[in-house]
This record gives sequence, structure tokens and C-alpha cells, in this order.
Amino acid sequence: MPSYFSEIAPVQFAGPASTDPLAFKWYDRDKLVLGKRMEDHLRFAACYWHSFCWNGFDPFGYDGTFERPWQHVADPMAAARAKADAAFEFFAKLGVPYYCFHDRDVAPEGATPRESVNHLHEMVDVLGEKQQQTGMKLLWGTANLFSHRRFMSGAATNPDPALFGMAALQVKEAMDATLKLGGENYVLWGGREGYETLLNTRMGQELDQMGRFLNMVVEYKHKIGFKGTILIEPKPREPTKHQYDYDVATVYGSLCRFGLEKEIKVNIEANHATLAGHSFEHEIATAIDLGIFGSIDMNRGDMQCQWDTDQFPNSIPDTALAMYLILQGGGFKTGGVNFDSKVRRQSIDPQDMFYGHIGGMDVTARALLIAEKMITDGRVEKAIADRYAGWKSPEAQNILAGKVSLDDLAAQVLAGGADPRPVSGRQEYMENLLNAFI
Amino acid sequence: MPSYFSEIAPVQFAGPASTDPLAFKWYDRDKLVLGKRMEDHLRFAACYWHSFCWNGFDPFGYDGTFERPWQHVADPMAAARAKADAAFEFFAKLGVPYYCFHDRDVAPEGATPRESVNHLHEMVDVLGEKQQQTGMKLLWGTANLFSHRRFMSGAATNPDPALFGMAALQVKEAMDATLKLGGENYVLWGGREGYETLLNTRMGQELDQMGRFLNMVVEYKHKIGFKGTILIEPKPREPTKHQYDYDVATVYGSLCRFGLEKEIKVNIEANHATLAGHSFEHEIATAIDLGIFGSIDMNRGDMQCQWDTDQFPNSIPDTALAMYLILQGGGFKTGGVNFDSKVRRQSIDPQDMFYGHIGGMDVTARALLIAEKMITDGRVEKAIADRYAGWKSPEAQNILAGKVSLDDLAAQVLAGGADPRPVSGRQEYMENLLNAFI
Amino acid sequence: MPSYFSEIAPVQFAGPASTDPLAFKWYDRDKLVLGKRMEDHLRFAACYWHSFCWNGFDPFGYDGTFERPWQHVADPMAAARAKADAAFEFFAKLGVPYYCFHDRDVAPEGATPRESVNHLHEMVDVLGEKQQQTGMKLLWGTANLFSHRRFMSGAATNPDPALFGMAALQVKEAMDATLKLGGENYVLWGGREGYETLLNTRMGQELDQMGRFLNMVVEYKHKIGFKGTILIEPKPREPTKHQYDYDVATVYGSLCRFGLEKEIKVNIEANHATLAGHSFEHEIATAIDLGIFGSIDMNRGDMQCQWDTDQFPNSIPDTALAMYLILQGGGFKTGGVNFDSKVRRQSIDPQDMFYGHIGGMDVTARALLIAEKMITDGRVEKAIADRYAGWKSPEAQNILAGKVSLDDLAAQVLAGGADPRPVSGRQEYMENLLNAFI
Amino acid sequence: MPSYFSEIAPVQFAGPASTDPLAFKWYDRDKLVLGKRMEDHLRFAACYWHSFCWNGFDPFGYDGTFERPWQHVADPMAAARAKADAAFEFFAKLGVPYYCFHDRDVAPEGATPRESVNHLHEMVDVLGEKQQQTGMKLLWGTANLFSHRRFMSGAATNPDPALFGMAALQVKEAMDATLKLGGENYVLWGGREGYETLLNTRMGQELDQMGRFLNMVVEYKHKIGFKGTILIEPKPREPTKHQYDYDVATVYGSLCRFGLEKEIKVNIEANHATLAGHSFEHEIATAIDLGIFGSIDMNRGDMQCQWDTDQFPNSIPDTALAMYLILQGGGFKTGGVNFDSKVRRQSIDPQDMFYGHIGGMDVTARALLIAEKMITDGRVEKAIADRYAGWKSPEAQNILAGKVSLDDLAAQVLAGGADPRPVSGRQEYMENLLNAFI
Ligand SMILES: [Co+2]
Ligand SMILES: [Co+2]
Ligand SMILES: [Co+2]
Ligand SMILES: [Co+2]
Ligand SMILES: [Co+2]
Ligand SMILES: [Co+2]
Ligand SMILES: [Co+2]
Ligand SMILES: [Co+2]
Repeated sequence: MPSYFSEIAPVQFAGPASTDPLAFKWYDRDKLVLGKRMEDHLRFAACYWHSFCWNGFDPFGYDGTFERPWQHVADPMAAARAKADAAFEFFAKLGVPYYCFHDRDVAPEGATPRESVNHLHEMVDVLGEKQQQTGMKLLWGTANLFSHRRFMSGAATNPDPALFGMAALQVKEAMDATLKLGGENYVLWGGREGYETLLNTRMGQELDQMGRFLNMVVEYKHKIGFKGTILIEPKPREPTKHQYDYDVATVYGSLCRFGLEKEIKVNIEANHATLAGHSFEHEIATAIDLGIFGSIDMNRGDMQCQWDTDQFPNSIPDTALAMYLILQGGGFKTGGVNFDSKVRRQSIDPQDMFYGHIGGMDVTARALLIAEKMITDGRVEKAIADRYAGWKSPEAQNILAGKVSLDDLAAQVLAGGADPRPVSGRQEYMENLLNAFI
Repeated sequence: MPSYFSEIAPVQFAGPASTDPLAFKWYDRDKLVLGKRMEDHLRFAACYWHSFCWNGFDPFGYDGTFERPWQHVADPMAAARAKADAAFEFFAKLGVPYYCFHDRDVAPEGATPRESVNHLHEMVDVLGEKQQQTGMKLLWGTANLFSHRRFMSGAATNPDPALFGMAALQVKEAMDATLKLGGENYVLWGGREGYETLLNTRMGQELDQMGRFLNMVVEYKHKIGFKGTILIEPKPREPTKHQYDYDVATVYGSLCRFGLEKEIKVNIEANHATLAGHSFEHEIATAIDLGIFGSIDMNRGDMQCQWDTDQFPNSIPDTALAMYLILQGGGFKTGGVNFDSKVRRQSIDPQDMFYGHIGGMDVTARALLIAEKMITDGRVEKAIADRYAGWKSPEAQNILAGKVSLDDLAAQVLAGGADPRPVSGRQEYMENLLNAFI
Repeated sequence: MPSYFSEIAPVQFAGPASTDPLAFKWYDRDKLVLGKRMEDHLRFAACYWHSFCWNGFDPFGYDGTFERPWQHVADPMAAARAKADAAFEFFAKLGVPYYCFHDRDVAPEGATPRESVNHLHEMVDVLGEKQQQTGMKLLWGTANLFSHRRFMSGAATNPDPALFGMAALQVKEAMDATLKLGGENYVLWGGREGYETLLNTRMGQELDQMGRFLNMVVEYKHKIGFKGTILIEPKPREPTKHQYDYDVATVYGSLCRFGLEKEIKVNIEANHATLAGHSFEHEIATAIDLGIFGSIDMNRGDMQCQWDTDQFPNSIPDTALAMYLILQGGGFKTGGVNFDSKVRRQSIDPQDMFYGHIGGMDVTARALLIAEKMITDGRVEKAIADRYAGWKSPEAQNILAGKVSLDDLAAQVLAGGADPRPVSGRQEYMENLLNAFI
Repeated sequence: MPSYFSEIAPVQFAGPASTDPLAFKWYDRDKLVLGKRMEDHLRFAACYWHSFCWNGFDPFGYDGTFERPWQHVADPMAAARAKADAAFEFFAKLGVPYYCFHDRDVAPEGATPRESVNHLHEMVDVLGEKQQQTGMKLLWGTANLFSHRRFMSGAATNPDPALFGMAALQVKEAMDATLKLGGENYVLWGGREGYETLLNTRMGQELDQMGRFLNMVVEYKHKIGFKGTILIEPKPREPTKHQYDYDVATVYGSLCRFGLEKEIKVNIEANHATLAGHSFEHEIATAIDLGIFGSIDMNRGDMQCQWDTDQFPNSIPDTALAMYLILQGGGFKTGGVNFDSKVRRQSIDPQDMFYGHIGGMDVTARALLIAEKMITDGRVEKAIADRYAGWKSPEAQNILAGKVSLDDLAAQVLAGGADPRPVSGRQEYMENLLNAFI
């Protein structure tokens, strides 16, 4: 087996003072944070698609910029094996415990549905061996229902039921593969489940199809005894004009409508959060409060570019706030921190793939340490608790418990006669406090 | 009673060829459209606040630009009466059948809660008389829970339960007023029900408060026998950074969570749709498909300004598409077309108020006529029906009915072996077709 | 020569009442509008790249959706000839008088710079023959300096001067080709002339390179006797994070800095205008007022998608306003209306290419007729003239002529003592007036 | 003289470990940074308007939320004196060396132009005394040409020349006041110099007016011997739909057109940068590279709110990058760091005003220290220098010097035959490097 990264040594922790660009400054996997190993908190995953399948193409440069040797193998299955070699060499050298993949990332489309399935089965065996050799684990698997032209008008929400069937086949097989490889979650990202124009779309029909599909997925999960979590990854648009899984709140509404709010959770991507007009921390907080927080894709957008740039995270304060909320919400269960990130298309050297992941892991590790300080310190939480203290009174609890009617409460207020004085929200104080931990 | 618009005659229909800027070119209230009078289709309402309360101020011009005589009456209750005189003179001359108001638009805040209530009671009597004299009807009432400083941190979602009480009092009274005046809907717009920063916010707590409040409103509606519809008006942000009623899909999710999806519908504003990253027609279609379509605020934004400009509609194609979807969805029941619109702050003449409303009514009437042509013609609907025809087959219906499992369907597809060919979405054809009706 | 569109007859004008989707409803080339033939006003061009080179790929679907036969010819030069056959058959059947191309659209990249040049020379001869046979003319030529990986960090603004040289070669050759084919303009769109991050960018250096390059282009134009117009096409971003030719105003500033404001004009694309935060009409008006208006790309964006969707225009009011401003500005000289538009990737049938162009041409023709009505009517222009009438007075003219100093004017105002009364901007009146012409 | 902030002691530097929310953690005015005192690097200014004039109103809350005692003085001139007392007490306790004001912030509009002038003269004397007593200096003065209704359609660009005159009077007087108070700059922010709709606007005429006005200002500056810098503050929109001073590049183009690019520089606001679709650092870099960098308003926006939130800066990395670019560009000359920032309208306590400014000053001071580290370290600069090293060769210098024509360069490239290999842009490496300094 050839080495694709022979010039790179396994990445080691060297501490914040190190100037080695290929060492971790903050990610120290065995360091205890609030009593748990960093690695166990963060559950980092690298993704297969951006680093091993993408050739650096963009809408204005079809031929790509990279010259990855494993992308220039003529036979499709031999290419798939070479890609797996490269991927697992990279994962192992990086020292990330998990990876994620789409079915079509690891195994090529065949000439017939049957051949595609066979390709996948064959490659799942290869991946299984690689996992054994390296100790890598699968954070989640998923099916690519958006790249092939057959899915141009959607998969489960396609106007043609034959495509719904093709989607069913792929998802069934991808779930089987995930189960077989010990995957801890299964993700659904409906990249083409939406519309380009309402003029040719019957949205209600398509939503019904989506609801049925999701239920079939959940039923199948239970049938095969998959113990992981089914996750939906929301995104507002791109490639479609409108995607039905717009954001966390929209997904929650769909889950309620389809009776699945106890069965499916969300995988939140930072870039998708900002594309939807939200902050990353908003989407995390929403999911936690609605009881559907599952996992995250820790890749950011560029606030000047309203498309999916999928950049490695580099903002210490933003990441710290995200980690604080996740820890306050109880941390990850089956989920983890996936880098659905890609190096810039000008970053054509193999080293760049390492720089991207190392930087992202360091920022996240540093964010975890900041979150630990915030929690240990307690001032942030106390300020919030004080602000809502009034709701602890028996009278206020009665209101929340549904024991007071609108007119009774109105009558009390009228009888009381007092006009409550507003209290400062102290936003600047809170913002300064956050910076004190950085 | 002085006339505030003595120079303006009641607005008449004069037909498309007219060059009179103070006549309707398209709104011909008795004209039959698909067998129903235009007025009965459109159920136009003018709003109290923008035309009669606002003084033309903006964030960079506190003192306003207008010099409305009814805004320069010293005694608050006398000013409220003068404002009512002006408003009803305007409504009657314009010839709009409905109006809408907030409690604080029609009656001034008093020194105590009791005095505020008394003010409202007194003015409701005045409004009742005005309605009798003019034949005007109330499309909806609502409570202003966002202008007073006491609500700076929210009303129902305030960290202080005392403010929840103040909100309860206002809403109870505004619902009573709406019932007494024969209002056909009651609207909730939670302008401050959201947050400025997550750093000082316990979102889950606030959402619980909101859920309880909405339930109290619905319980009270039934208690007093109000037969109208309770409507939530979604908006993503402004004045807050994030508003809990972000868009139609988010509201739907909240209603499910609070058990209210059969009790509350939405009032969709065009400007709020585009602020949320959607088209107006998207929000309408979503509400219809989710079964919560209620009413609309037909005021547009400026696509270059991502704040609430609340402009009168002037796009014929956009409005036509909205009206088409509404007619296809069964038209308005208790809802209607409200102009939550304001003239530009440079439009300081009384005539400008008429130009704005006349233009908006004409565009909407014209849109209705276009929608009628589209429906009568049938090509748009047929193209869509053809596109989804495959789902009519018994096999496809079985899938939707839940009679097929994921693995069974996968097995069928695998056995079949065929790869379905994609079919053109024909977007350009559909867009050209739409323009054929304009 | 095989026919690629054998099922499509040449597109004819059939009038607004026609229901034939493959006929023009409004574009009647010989119809006189303000004394000039429609064709001569609009100078329509179709583009080579989107319809004949693009395979329907997008960032989430690399393999594309189209199955254009001319894209499946193995030999590169044979494929280029097949593409030219398809393109000119399409242009001729559509009945558009002009076309536009990039060098790499018409001739494939070779193994060496020399071979690339040879390919282009060979294909220019082919295009010349095609022009002769069909009567088609070239609106503009341009060089593709953004697709090849060598230009990933820019062409003229590349950190490596060797790339500046490669760009020089391509532009020199593309200018020669344009001259030889009788092109009426030469366009520069600097798709990668910008940056992804300031962290690795010396912007001042890159701007200097750009300035030198533009001057070399203008010098060469004069050297070879090219009588057409050099045009820059502004765009704010995509593929880069920031493009140096952000918008019309930015281009104007650069031209001034480089001493080229009399030598270069702009080609304004509707989609790029809205991506830059402007309306299309804003960019047109700005260019006219700065004296650099040249030509337009009449393809729109989707206001919910902040990337370049390059859709065919379909908004009658927006297009009417654009045409009105262009006519008021004196109409096109060497410029014209290019459709840098692509059908949606779901529009996979050959007919869809016709629907797109027919719809775009009809909307533009209709807009021209509306603009004619506005001009003939004169009310719009009169309302504006009245608004600025005060500036016609001798005193006001003296101010503009620089004959009054700040302190003198201040002293006059102080002596006068009067406070001028604001006058209504009448925006709603103007908006209604515009709709009267639609 | 009453104390308005009697409960607050002068703010002291207490170091990063301090938990006192009313102490500086990083701003240590006498600390040497690259050989210069922090205070002399940063030249901090607080603004008069947001903290002392604004009452907490917003578009949905006219009455405001604050209860500042100095805003409840009945007599206008007595109120102005009370406001000055409060402002200077605040400035002095905060320990900021500079302040900034609009004419109407410090002195009330009078009943006539003459009275307004008299008010200003009177208050300039008061301010002069305050400066003497406290040692405070004036960073810049400006005139408010956007709040009064007379300017609703613009000041210098008003369709009515009488308003141009009113603007001239105010600017002349504000320049006199700035000179008298030793102001180091004079700022022009054209909040209403733009348009709401092109339908009623003659943009070319308005731009000519603007050009004339700017020239009058510059001529007057020289006449009175004002040695400070004239600064334009760009903003893309709000309150108008389009502001003529859209961004730095647009201002540069205007200055060239009006012959003023050597006379006027820019005051760059972070919030206005992001509203214009740019990063703050982009605007700074652009101004430096175009030779018009003057001063900054260090207040940020909220990336989810596309309006001017004017928040105190709190992002350490963003501010560090800004400070790095400014230091690399030579630092401030007459300019400085102004906080055109306001506390959130829920931040109603006097302490909140201090928290906001302290946090902003600390973040900026910390950013300065990071920038110092980056410069001392040198790796960032070296990486950039290496990337552009090719342009140092004599051949490349000849190109930039204009000694090589397009066709000569093309011929060289063709003769050479080599295709240059792209070099990695190393964005991830650079991003990681930046974080190493935080
Ligand atoms: Co993404
Ligand atoms: Co993702
Ligand atoms: Co509304
Ligand atoms: Co609104
Ligand atoms: Co484009
Ligand atoms: Co273009
Ligand atoms: Co600002
Ligand atoms: Co500012």
C-alpha cells in the first residue's frame, strides 16, 4: 500500500507555545476537562467527501485545482480502494477518532442499481477492515441523494414515485452499511428535497412524501435493531432555492407533523445556521430546548458569502459559545463534532488538509477549555438565573402550570395597580464577561 | 366635526384608462370574479397605526416629518377622538370595508393600568359609533405589547412574571374590544417576544411562557364566545435580533408543541416573509399546506433593505402569484387583505395616504383578475398535475398510505433494475406562462 | 451536418394572444418603437457558454443533468465543431442577431500555450464561416481567465507574474479573435481578480497589477485598430470572496485611478447588481450618470439566493424600468442586451433552451414598449423635472458653477432667515404611475 | 453641578485577572506598544449622541427606555448644559482622551436659523470650558443634516436648492466650532444623501450637487486655516435605500470625480462595512491602499441584523485584524478610534454605559497587543512577502512600470511555452497563525 502522506508524521500535541504548524496547540486528547477526556467530550470526526472526493471544482472552475493521486486511478473500484487508503492514512495521522461518509463517497455508482449495491457491499468490507486496523470509528453514515442527475428534482420528494423508490434503496443500503460498521448515527441531509420554483411544485404533496419516507426510515431502523440516532441536517437552501429542512425549528415542526419528534434529532451545521439567518449558537440552543439536539457539523460560512463555503472553524469566541451551550445542555450522547469542512480550492498541498483539520480541532479544544472555565466560574449562569428568578415564585409557577386564566390574571393585575419597573438586560456586561474567559 | 381630508372626494372606480391619480383603475368592488364580488374576495382593510399614529419618525429622525393635525391635540383623549375622526373619514373616503387597530393606537396609555383600561373602554364606544355611521367593519384587533418601555425585554416571554401579567391584562381587554366591535379575527404579533443576545436569555423558559400564554388566549376566546380566528403574525427579527415566531414553519412547530395547531392560524406579511429569507408566495403556500392559513398583510419590503419598510405592494406579478395561491387554497374565510403599509416619510401630503392605498388596492385587484384568468385557463394547474401524475397510481398510493416498508420498496427497485429517467422541470415554460396572464 | 434541434422550427412572432410556447408574443423585430426597429433598439445576444458548454453541473452535482449530444464527442476539436454547429443552429432558429463567447467556450485548451492558440485560430475561422452563413454578428468576445486551475489565485492580479503573462496571452488572442470576427465590444470579467482572505493578500499590489493590465489592454486595442468598446463587467463576489470590480461605482473609481475613465465602459449584469446590494436600475443609472454605460447582461438572480443564478429575466416591471432608463440615457451604442442566462438544471430538454430565451426576449420587448409609452406620455419625466425645478434659477446655477463659497451661502441663508418647507417626494404616486403603463 | 454618575468611580486599569466589571483589564494607557503609549496609538473617543441624546427609542418603541435625568430638563438651553455636564463627567470618569459631536447634539435647534447659530455659539463656549477643566480633546465635529424634517429628501443633494443653503449654513458653523474647539478632524456623514426610489430621483444632478458641496467644504477649510482632516464616513443605506457614499471604494471614485482625492479621507465604521457587504478589515485595507485612510468608528453590527445596530466591539479576532492592518498602514495620524456605539435599549442603567465603553476599549487594547505580537513575530508578513516575491524580479518590475506591451508579453509567453504551476494559497495555515497570537 503506497503512502499518500509520507512527508507528514502523525500529529502530536505540542502545547500553545509551539510554532510547528503540524502540531496541536490545544487538542490534548487525554486532558481531563470537567472530569472527562477531551477526546470523549469532542468526539471529533473528519469527513470523507470534501477531502477525498472533491477535486477543487467550483461553479466557475469545473476541472478543479487539486491533483490528488487517488483521484487519478482509472478503474472505479480500484479508485475507491485507493481513496480508502488515502482517507484512513489521513484519519490515522490526524488522530481523529471518527469519520463520516456518504455511500457514493466510498463506492462508485454502478451501471445498474444492483451493481451500485454490490459496489457498496464490497467497499463496506474494505472500510470494516480499515476500521479494525486503525481503530477508527464511524460517527455517521449517510446516502448521497443529490449528486446524481436522477435526483435533480428531489429524492423522497420527487414528483416521480420511481425516484422515491431509488431513494429508498439507497437509504436502506446506507443504513445497513452504517449498522454493519458500528456507526453511532445515521444522517439525512435532503439537499434536493425542496424546490426551485413554486410554479411547478405541489409542496403539500412533497411534504407528505417526505413524512412517509422519514417514517419508513425510522421503522426500518427499529426493524434492523440499529441503536444509533437518526439525524436530520437542516439547511435553508442551496442547491435548491428552498429546502424543506430549512432550520432546526422547521425540522421540529415537520417531526411533530409526522409524529417523529421522539425518534429523530438534528445534526446542526454552523454554515447552514448562518445561511438560515441564525447564529450557530441559536440553532444549538433551539435544538436543546426542543429536545432534538444530536450532533454538529463544526464548519463555518463566510459572513460575506451567502452560500455554503464549509470552512474550518477559526473563531475562538463563536466556538466557545457553542461549546458552552452544548456542555450546559449535557454534552454529546451519540453525536460528536464533525468537520464537514473543506480546504479552500487554492489550498492544493496535502499539508493544507492537515492545517485545516488541526486548526479546527485546536479552536474547538480551546473553546472547550473556555467553556469549562465559564462553567467553573459560574458568573454567566448566575446572571441568567438571577434574571429569571421571579418565575420561581409559587404564583409564577401556578401561571406556568396552567392554573390561572387570562381574565383572572388580568383582574389581579388590575387590582394590584402597580406597573413593574423594567430591569437592565446587561448585554454589555455579559459580553465583557464572556471575553474574560478567552 | 372638522374634515381632515376636505380636499379629497370619495375614491371611485374609473377604469384602467383613467389618468386620475385619485381614482381606482382596477378595484371595482361589485365586479364579479369567479362568481364572487371583488370586495368579498379581497376583504381589504386599512390599518390605524401607520397612517394615523406614526409621525414619520425613523431611527435617524426622531421628530418625524408629517404634520398631521390630529397629532397635535394636547389632551390625550381628545387627541384619540380626533384621530378616530380622521381615521374613519379616511377609511370611508377610500372605500375600504375593514380596518385594524392595536389597543394603544385608539386609546392612550393611562397613568395606571386601570386608567388605560378605562381609556380603551371609552374609545371602543367611539369606534362602535363610527362603525355604525360608516358601515366600516373590524377585520382584526390586537394589543401593542412592544412600544412601552415596560415590554423592552418581552411581554409573555419577559424574564419578569409581572410583565406577563401586564400582557395578560392588555390582551384580555383587546380581545374584549375586538369581540364587542364585531372583529373577525384577533392577531398576536410578538414584536419583542425573542431575544437580543443568548448570553442573557433562557430560551426554553421563554418558550414555555409563550406556550402558556397562547393557551390562555385560546381558552379565553372560547370562554367569551369569540367566533373569530386567533392569528399569529410571524416575523424573523426587528426590533429583536431573533423573534420566536420567525416564519410560518416555525409558528407551526410551536403550535404543535403547545397543542394549538387546530386553534391558531397565521397572518402572513409579505415584508416579514422576505425578511425571513422566503418569498411571500412561499409563506402563503406553506400555511395553506400546513392548514394554518388565515389572513395576510399585503405590504412589501425593499429587497435592498433588510428591515421592515412596510411599503404598499406594487409588483403585479408577485401579487398575482400570491392571489393565485390564495384562490387555489380556497380564498379567505375570516381573513382578508390588510395594508400594514405606510407611505414613505417623504410622502407628507394627505394625498399621499390615498395614493398609497389606491395603488395597493389596484395592484391587488389586478392580481385577482390575473389569478382568475389563470384558473379559468387551467394550463398552470394542468402542468403541475401532469408532473405529479405518477403518484396517482395504486402502487404509489400504497407507499403514501404506509403500506410499504423501506426494505420491501428497496427490494422491488432492485428487482426491477430500471433507472427512471429524469423529466424536465420546465421552469422557464412555467414562468413564460405566468407572464402570459399579465 | 446533423441537426441538433430538428424538432424546432424557426421562432416566429405570433402576437400576445398566441398560446404557442415556441413563438414570440412581444418581440416583433421590425416593429418601430420611437422610430427605430425593435431589433436595432435591443440588439439581443445569446451566449455560448451557458447553453453550449455547461452540462448542468452545480456544487452538489458534479456530473450535470443535461445530455447534450455535442458534449459527447471524444476528439476535442471535433467536439468544438459540433458545439459550433449546435450553437449557430440554435442562434439562427431563435432569431437573435448577436452572440457572445469566451475563447475557451469555442476552442479547447491545448497541451501547450501554442496549441491553445492554434485551436482558437482554427475555430475563429469556423465561427467566421458560420457568421457568414447565418448573418449572425458578434456582440462581444472575452477570455476565460477563471476556469483553469492555473488562474485559481487570479489572472492579472495573481501573486505570480508568470500568470499575468498567461493572462496577457489569452487576452491578446481573444482581442484579435474579436477584431477578426467583427465584434462590437470586448469584455473583461475578472472572476478571480479578487481575494479569498486578506490574510494572504497584498491588495495594493494586486490593484496595481490590475491597473497595468487594463492599460495594456487599452493600448493594444488602439494598436490593432479595434473600434469597439472595452467593457468591464462588475461583480461583487463569487467565485472569490471579494472581486475588485465590485460594482459600477467601484469600477469607476478604479478607472479614474488608472486614467481610463474615457477608455473603458461597463457591461452591467442584473444578477451582479443585486448580489452587490443594488437594484439593476441603480447600476444602469449610475453608469449613465458617470458616463460609462456600455452594455447589459439581462439575466436576473433569485432574491432568496445570494449567488449567481443567472436566470432569464421574467419581471415585466423591473425590466421596464431598466429599459426606460436606458432609452432616457440615449439607448445602446455598441452595446446590447446579452442573455448571460442559463436554463435551470432541471430544464433538460432542448425546448427549454428556447423557452428561456423566448421568454427573456419577450419580457425585454414588452419592457421596451412600456418604456416607449412612458416616454411618449411624459408624466414621469415631468414629475421629476418639476421636483428639481429650483435648480434652474440663476442663483442655484451659480452655486453649481462654483461661484458661491460656503460662508457666503451661509451668510445669505442667515440673512434670509426663512426655513424652506419640505415638499412631498410622492413615491407612491410615482409607483402607481409606473404601473399605469404595464 | 450635580453628579450624574456619583456611584461610579473613575475607571482604573486592574489587569486581565480582575473581576471588577468597572475596571479595565487590558487598556493600560501608558503601557508602551511598539515604543508608543497605548493611549497615543488608539486615540479613543466617545460620542455624544448615542449616550447623551438618544433615549432608547427604536422603530417599534417611540418613547424610549432610558430615564436619563439630563433628558428631562424643560428649557432647551438648560437641558443642553445639563447634557454637557453629564457627558463630560462620563468622559472624564471613563478616561477617554477624545470625544465627538454633531452640532445638534450639543445645542438645540432654534426657532430660526439665527437662533440655532446662537445656540451653537453659546454651547461651544461651554464645551471649551469643559475641555479646559477636564483635559478632554475633540477628535472630530460634524453637522447633523439628517434628523430635521427639512432634510428628509437630502441636504446637499436635496431637490430644493434652499436646503443646500441650509446645509451650507450648518456645516460652516460646525466647521467653525470644530476649529475653535481644536478638533483634529471634521466628518461628513450624508445620512440622507441618497434616494428612496429612482422613480423620483435625478441621480446625476444630485451627484453634481454633492461634488460642489464637498468642494465648498474643502475651500472653506483652507480659508479658515483648519489643519485637521476632512473625512467622509461611508454607509450603503439606512435611513435611505441607497446612500451615495456607499463604501470606501465608492467614496474614492467620487473624490476622483470631484478632484478631491488628495483633500478628503474616510472615517470607516465597522457596522457600515458589514452593511455594505464587506468586512471591516476590507474597508480599512482598501482605504489604506487608496491613500484615503483617516479614522475609524469601532462599532460593530450584528451579522443577523442588516441594519445599523452600532454595538460595542467584542470580537477579539476581528478587532485584532483591524488593528494589525492599521499598524501596518502606519497607524493613525489625525484619526482615532471612535465609539459610535450605543448600549442596547434594554441596558437602561448608568453602569451599562460604562460596561459598553470599557468592554470596547479593552477589546481594542487587547487587539493592539495582539497586533504588536504579530508584527514582532513577523511570520504573517513574511508569508505574504514570499507569496508575491516573483514581482520583485526585474522582468516583473518592467511590466508594472509600463515597459512591456500586451502583445510583447504574449509573444514571450508563447515563446517560453511553459505553463506556470499554481502555488497553494495556504489560507488555513494563515488562519491558524492568526489564532496563535490570540
Ligand atoms: Co454545508
Ligand atoms: Co454538513
Ligand atoms: Co404586519
Ligand atoms: Co412589517
Ligand atoms: Co452572473
Ligand atoms: Co454576465
Ligand atoms: Co452606524
Ligand atoms: Co459612525
